[in-house]
Amino acid sequence: MPVYFISDSTGISAETMGNALLAQFPTVPFERRLIPFLRTTREAEEVREQLNQAMDGPVEPIVFLTVVDEEVREVLLGTRAPVIDFVSGHLARIEAQLGLSSDHAPARLHGVGDVRRYNRRMQAVEFAIEHDDGQSVRAIQRADVILIAPSRCGKTPTSMYLALMHGVFVANYPLVDEDFENGNLPQTIADLSDRCFGLLTSPKRLSEVRGERRPDSRYASVDQTHWELSRARRIYDYYGIPFVDSSSKSVEEMSTLILQSLTDRPAP
Amino acid sequence: MPVYFISDSTGISAETMGNALLAQFPTVPFERRLIPFLRTTREAEEVREQLNQAMDGPVEPIVFLTVVDEEVREVLLGTRAPVIDFVSGHLARIEAQLGLSSDHAPARLHGVGDVRRYNRRMQAVEFAIEHDDGQSVRAIQRADVILIAPSRCGKTPTSMYLALMHGVFVANYPLVDEDFENGNLPQTIADLSDRCFGLLTSPKRLSEVRGERRPDSRYASVDQTHWELSRARRIYDYYGIPFVDSSSKSVEEMSTLILQSLTDRPAP
Repeated sequence: MPVYFISDSTGISAETMGNALLAQFPTVPFERRLIPFLRTTREAEEVREQLNQAMDGPVEPIVFLTVVDEEVREVLLGTRAPVIDFVSGHLARIEAQLGLSSDHAPARLHGVGDVRRYNRRMQAVEFAIEHDDGQSVRAIQRADVILIAPSRCGKTPTSMYLALMHGVFVANYPLVDEDFENGNLPQTIADLSDRCFGLLTSPKRLSEVRGERRPDSRYASVDQTHWELSRARRIYDYYGIPFVDSSSKSVEEMSTLILQSLTDRPAP
Repeated sequence: MPVYFISDSTGISAETMGNALLAQFPTVPFERRLIPFLRTTREAEEVREQLNQAMDGPVEPIVFLTVVDEEVREVLLGTRAPVIDFVSGHLARIEAQLGLSSDHAPARLHGVGDVRRYNRRMQAVEFAIEHDDGQSVRAIQRADVILIAPSRCGKTPTSMYLALMHGVFVANYPLVDEDFENGNLPQTIADLSDRCFGLLTSPKRLSEVRGERRPDSRYASVDQTHWELSRARRIYDYYGIPFVDSSSKSVEEMSTLILQSLTDRPAP
């Protein structure tokens, strides 16, 4: 089924929400097409024509719409194709609730928007890269979170997600044989255990991931990964460090849990 | 105004779409609260109670809901608080269009989902970090996009966004004085100009950003940034490299434009 995401901005909201709905139909093959930055009624007329033509194809399309400008939206809603409009009804509802009329300016959310928040996200990405995989402990006191785990448990992408999407200053630090043997956090971060968050995974999964890099190595053996993970778990328990299992969770899910733990944890 | 994002998954869809709507009211102060991973009717009853209490507060709340399980959703919809339900009506609409009933399983989209696509995103993050700021040209042939620009134009966060959110293999490569003087791409990427995408910004903005790192340096002077940007532009024009101005665009907007250019560009 052809799917159109149409927006006067990046289309990120339309895609996120639309795909969440489409994910409920895992057996249906969808062909996705994004039409972002649609701003004029003239462009809208062309797209309306395109949608009408798609209606004459073998499978009728579905359209997800996030267009704030009323004139542009009206043109698009003139299509014969079925449209799921994420803006009109919902926006009217919020306007009623607030007793305010919105200004219908496109591109607010995924533009730079709140400049301070935006700049913080950009700085957080720099911080995360500088502090990836224990490469640096410079200014590590600025870290909101220090992700710790044995090598290849998913620290890096989770750090990047938290930095880029939420402006969280994240360092990530590998746990290594020495730490597992003495059962302590690495010395450089031992005083910061209240900001640590641990990752675990299954020995089998970790062995597979490591095997892609170094096949048939001790590093990738299930014996080794089992030992490292059980020792890592012991360290988390000893320091009272919260942790999450990355083998069954996406970076989005882990990030949500980590953010929750930040809100729940008492300020030091 | 208190705002609740309630989801049986991460809440990313509820937040993304909800915040896009709220962004239409830039003067209203919103207090946001995320309640993710809500899965049981018992938890739903507690949250319903919490919402009803919020209704007795000084300002009535608004609730954004993405709960797929019908029983859990029904409990929540029993609240007195106004709810914007992004699932029910829209999902019914898609079911009708497809002639199919969805299976109402939560957590599809922001879970690992399509494992191949998910793994590609994780690999793309690794690739982007390895190829950040010209640090390595190992396997640079695997890059889908090579972002080029003078130092501090926003290459790194844009690369990370494309990698993490879209699984695009992005290298980023700085243009330096030597390149500006001879008017050519750096030799290591000269053969890959058809995969290059340039960033520009304004001399003033670039001078400010650089000044944060090295105040009062030649590097941060407007003379220098003006020269670098005009020479970078000349290189883009010479090779026919598309580019975007990062001074007025967010990483989300730039990424959308870069993805569009990938679709539009003829395959080499």
